[in-house]
Amino acid sequence: MKLVVINPNSTQSMTDKITVAAKAAAGHAVEIEGRTAHGAPASIEGHFDEVMCAAHLLREVQHAETNGADAIIVACFDDPAIGACREIATGPVLGICEAGVKAASMIATSFSIVTTLPRSVPIIEGLVRQYGLDHLCRRVRSAEIPVLALEEPGSNTRQLVRDEIQRAVDEDGCEAVVLGCAGMSDLTEWLSREAGVPVIDGVTVATKFAEALVGSGLVTSKIGAYAVPNKK
Amino acid sequence: MKLVVINPNSTQSMTDKITVAAKAAAGHAVEIEGRTAHGAPASIEGHFDEVMCAAHLLREVQHAETNGADAIIVACFDDPAIGACREIATGPVLGICEAGVKAASMIATSFSIVTTLPRSVPIIEGLVRQYGLDHLCRRVRSAEIPVLALEEPGSNTRQLVRDEIQRAVDEDGCEAVVLGCAGMSDLTEWLSREAGVPVIDGVTVATKFAEALVGSGLVTSKIGAYAVPNKK
Amino acid sequence: MKLVVINPNSTQSMTDKITVAAKAAAGHAVEIEGRTAHGAPASIEGHFDEVMCAAHLLREVQHAETNGADAIIVACFDDPAIGACREIATGPVLGICEAGVKAASMIATSFSIVTTLPRSVPIIEGLVRQYGLDHLCRRVRSAEIPVLALEEPGSNTRQLVRDEIQRAVDEDGCEAVVLGCAGMSDLTEWLSREAGVPVIDGVTVATKFAEALVGSGLVTSKIGAYAVPNKK
Amino acid sequence: MKLVVINPNSTQSMTDKITVAAKAAAGHAVEIEGRTAHGAPASIEGHFDEVMCAAHLLREVQHAETNGADAIIVACFDDPAIGACREIATGPVLGICEAGVKAASMIATSFSIVTTLPRSVPIIEGLVRQYGLDHLCRRVRSAEIPVLALEEPGSNTRQLVRDEIQRAVDEDGCEAVVLGCAGMSDLTEWLSREAGVPVIDGVTVATKFAEALVGSGLVTSKIGAYAVPNKK
Amino acid sequence: MKLVVINPNSTQSMTDKITVAAKAAAGHAVEIEGRTAHGAPASIEGHFDEVMCAAHLLREVQHAETNGADAIIVACFDDPAIGACREIATGPVLGICEAGVKAASMIATSFSIVTTLPRSVPIIEGLVRQYGLDHLCRRVRSAEIPVLALEEPGSNTRQLVRDEIQRAVDEDGCEAVVLGCAGMSDLTEWLSREAGVPVIDGVTVATKFAEALVGSGLVTSKIGAYAVPNKK
Amino acid sequence: MKLVVINPNSTQSMTDKITVAAKAAAGHAVEIEGRTAHGAPASIEGHFDEVMCAAHLLREVQHAETNGADAIIVACFDDPAIGACREIATGPVLGICEAGVKAASMIATSFSIVTTLPRSVPIIEGLVRQYGLDHLCRRVRSAEIPVLALEEPGSNTRQLVRDEIQRAVDEDGCEAVVLGCAGMSDLTEWLSREAGVPVIDGVTVATKFAEALVGSGLVTSKIGAYAVPNKK
Repeated sequence: MKLVVINPNSTQSMTDKITVAAKAAAGHAVEIEGRTAHGAPASIEGHFDEVMCAAHLLREVQHAETNGADAIIVACFDDPAIGACREIATGPVLGICEAGVKAASMIATSFSIVTTLPRSVPIIEGLVRQYGLDHLCRRVRSAEIPVLALEEPGSNTRQLVRDEIQRAVDEDGCEAVVLGCAGMSDLTEWLSREAGVPVIDGVTVATKFAEALVGSGLVTSKIGAYAVPNKK
Repeated sequence: MKLVVINPNSTQSMTDKITVAAKAAAGHAVEIEGRTAHGAPASIEGHFDEVMCAAHLLREVQHAETNGADAIIVACFDDPAIGACREIATGPVLGICEAGVKAASMIATSFSIVTTLPRSVPIIEGLVRQYGLDHLCRRVRSAEIPVLALEEPGSNTRQLVRDEIQRAVDEDGCEAVVLGCAGMSDLTEWLSREAGVPVIDGVTVATKFAEALVGSGLVTSKIGAYAVPNKK
Repeated sequence: MKLVVINPNSTQSMTDKITVAAKAAAGHAVEIEGRTAHGAPASIEGHFDEVMCAAHLLREVQHAETNGADAIIVACFDDPAIGACREIATGPVLGICEAGVKAASMIATSFSIVTTLPRSVPIIEGLVRQYGLDHLCRRVRSAEIPVLALEEPGSNTRQLVRDEIQRAVDEDGCEAVVLGCAGMSDLTEWLSREAGVPVIDGVTVATKFAEALVGSGLVTSKIGAYAVPNKK
Repeated sequence: MKLVVINPNSTQSMTDKITVAAKAAAGHAVEIEGRTAHGAPASIEGHFDEVMCAAHLLREVQHAETNGADAIIVACFDDPAIGACREIATGPVLGICEAGVKAASMIATSFSIVTTLPRSVPIIEGLVRQYGLDHLCRRVRSAEIPVLALEEPGSNTRQLVRDEIQRAVDEDGCEAVVLGCAGMSDLTEWLSREAGVPVIDGVTVATKFAEALVGSGLVTSKIGAYAVPNKK
Repeated sequence: MKLVVINPNSTQSMTDKITVAAKAAAGHAVEIEGRTAHGAPASIEGHFDEVMCAAHLLREVQHAETNGADAIIVACFDDPAIGACREIATGPVLGICEAGVKAASMIATSFSIVTTLPRSVPIIEGLVRQYGLDHLCRRVRSAEIPVLALEEPGSNTRQLVRDEIQRAVDEDGCEAVVLGCAGMSDLTEWLSREAGVPVIDGVTVATKFAEALVGSGLVTSKIGAYAVPNKK
Repeated sequence: MKLVVINPNSTQSMTDKITVAAKAAAGHAVEIEGRTAHGAPASIEGHFDEVMCAAHLLREVQHAETNGADAIIVACFDDPAIGACREIATGPVLGICEAGVKAASMIATSFSIVTTLPRSVPIIEGLVRQYGLDHLCRRVRSAEIPVLALEEPGSNTRQLVRDEIQRAVDEDGCEAVVLGCAGMSDLTEWLSREAGVPVIDGVTVATKFAEALVGSGLVTSKIGAYAVPNKK
């Protein structure tokens, strides 16, 4: 089985980190290929960046499709252009927000999300409502850090994320925490230990859920919204 | 006041039609500029086309912004990339689905939507739910015609749209009908007479609502999700 | 075009203020007629007052109807008796709560409402849910002032409203604020400057939206809930 | 215990019928007083009629209040002016729609409602959503009869109601049926036998629930929306 | 009329307390029989305890059924196994959470719930959403006391419950409070006086509502989810 | 990794079938142990059967827990007693309804469910709403067959299921179908070919999702609703 994990921004160090997380999660005999959406913005911070990455992301989906991908993971918590990816893919396509919150709903009755910038909070709230889990989501929180600060060695971002998770546990009464940025995936284990509640990394669970869907023989439905794009 | 109406696909005849509708609706002393997203797909039929048009649409928003637009109308019923447009615009930005269903909710207690292709139905259902009006929307229907068939002289598309509207009135018990494609705007008056219920053209009401927001002194909020995109 | 703005309470100074706001908003060649529901309570503070004003309000709607009104604005944030007004009106009828929150939803992803008395909070919460925008409404807040205190020269009510708006911005994380009383319409400009976020006056946007609906050729649907009242 | 059952329209024969139903339901030592809202429309068919009855209804509530009523039932399925009634009443106030659908939700997992005129359907749908039971309500149906036709001896209305109930059972798969008009209360027993599913009369259950609330020592909360109207 | 009130845990002192509350509430000529689910856990604190009590509870329902019960009250705020009870009962079956929150919704526009342990909070939140009243429920709160502490003479539990109710009134702005445990029923009167808002005991209102349903001639619908269990 | 798949009814042939499905789905190095809830009803058809199986199911969960299970699958589409199972399990616990509908939501924008008996329809509707996916679920349908008929060689049940799936595709416009009974798992491949849309077997996807959660290092949260049961 071959899974392609696409970083929809153009920062290679994030792709590397994401690929490590996906490989660590992937099962025996699962090939993971990490891809970068070269030409996209360096980070996805808002709707504009989502649009600016989307065509590059779709190019990578097309590449994956023609190179034998069984499923595709889009490794950005805004779940950009997922519908479009599903139209041109044969196998399942999963965003890490969708995977993260659905995983949370399987092991806890409530969760909070900790993301990077405040401007991403309403975007994520909209996604959670779209996925039907707003009644379980206590709060979407921001650690007030730019996405790329997570890439800077020596920054205090991991402490800021940990502190915000702690506030989520203390103030929201949530039973689990979902990390709201692919760039946090290398911190998951440490954050879990610190928090004392399950901390969920979207890259990891999206990889495993994609593997699960492929292993179940499922592909993206092609008779409605996700049909192959119409020729003009 | 200057309003820019952007056709996010690349079909000039649709831009012309949309511009006519907007000009017919616009108030005294309102300048309407119709723009085409050259380079975009010839029609928007699904998520993939939405992505493929988005960067071109944003280029036109940027152009409008630097040429004195007070507000922007995005004339495609999928409301593509509205969030991104709002990030880079100063004034209000309105999609025609949002405008159409909110207008319907002001003059009726229920409505149905008649769009072109079946594949657009779940996309529109998702938008209506996002706008909070799913409890008033009886049904999203498709007349089973490609978008560009509306541009072909001599085709029977207007009859197909009228017949589907009639079914909406008869079977759904809806009190109004919203036209689910910008390419139907030239048919509005005729369809209204045929249907016997208010038939709402999104281009018309989006133009008027944009004019209304500007006239109310309102601009897009810049302190959260619609803040100016972050510099990288 | 003629728009009739009805103050459903009997306080003439409020009618004057509301009429000024509507005239300031109205477009070229739009005639605004302000009307007072003489015989109604001096202010609308709760359901009982809504009922006590309703027959007087409907009398004014009937008067407007027979005097060539193209649309009607009901200038009280409780949106009293809107359904009944729509039954006896031909053109569109808009309440200022409905107009205010729908305008907010077009320029922001979240909003809070600041009203006068605490007892109006659950009434407004119910309206917002009925309009389908509870998922965008962060909080309905009260400045803890009686409606008529807004009419007293030299009172500190404008400061109290400003302070509550500030708390909405700081504590709720809302992207816009809707003024929850027609009697605040003269403060809108000042409050907007103070708040640093869009502050929305329902009277202004209801006037403009009514103008927009009329300009779109739309009238109230007469085939269902808003049909002309049955003769007995 | 004294319960006052108010018919908010002015048709005495309906008051008589409603009073009979309430007396049949009332417990030992419960006094039932039926009251007619003289001056109100002869029937409540839409929002306009609701407004036209409301002041007369409130006058009767006030009369009940000063004559020792422990609770009040408003016997019209539109639940007109319930909030206002609750403001001026000390004890509980119940509308028959609220009582009917809440009773249905206690004995069945789904229900349909059969009312008189089509124009009442969206009004009732709005009420059911407000009461939070739209997920259990299969459909609101109309037997297409005017309210007062139920008062005409020899009319075929009881057959029309029975037939519509049968369609509800057959087509909606509902487990119970709620009668959507106070004027149907005398048919309940016969309709139940015909239908083979529980058929719920709002007058009966509102009377019993009001009795239950009083017997539980509960009164209308006076610290928020239902506080005594403000003096002007 | 005979009502059987079943305590689904095995603590006799709770049964005694519950029976006293039900008898105090019951009308003239209503026989109350209190039953204990011997063999069940001593208290119901979470899903596991719900399962462990369920078969014992059903045995008591069966016993009630064969001994002439007209309706059954399940006196635990988790509303355990209500669907199963309804399948084997002929008359109505009511849980005290369902009865409590529906009563609250009839006398107030908002309520909070005060229960015993934090672990019960998400369970009750789920029930309230299932009953469709989450839009009226301000907050489910825990007084952080084990259920059985309510049975210990001399404990400070009544003070803890009162203090939590006070916080509900002060912080949540709720108009009524529902007691979230059958073991609090003996405190209702005192708590109501202390709180200054209606305080609702589920045992009391469930008894009265059950009496109301029986008095309305209603039984559990047997044509769908609550049909008699299938023979194997 | 060891996954225990528990059939909560007592029919060994169903356990065998379920175990085959789970083994076919399970990854390399995953041990599958199928267990039967001996003492439970022969099939789960309604709430009563759910209760009657629950203690036996929990006994098997306990057994799995003490025998090294990493995760547990409860193979009945009613998802009986899942909360209780999660309280006593360390690892993840998944029901097949939850897994099935969440898988469907990852590969399609809408789905219908085909179950056995009509009485299960409202139960499943309730579950789907609890999981937050009612906006994607077109309809829950019954093939009108008893559960155990699926075990009878030579019966026409597979044709009945296929025909109902065909109606779901034709009438509901759904993009995927979820099989609403564990006893249909052996038909999945054939039904998928016949239907032409993805047909989802809950046993298969629950097995894979459980494997995914374990592979992600996730366990059931123990700080709230799913904490270990309280000692009495």
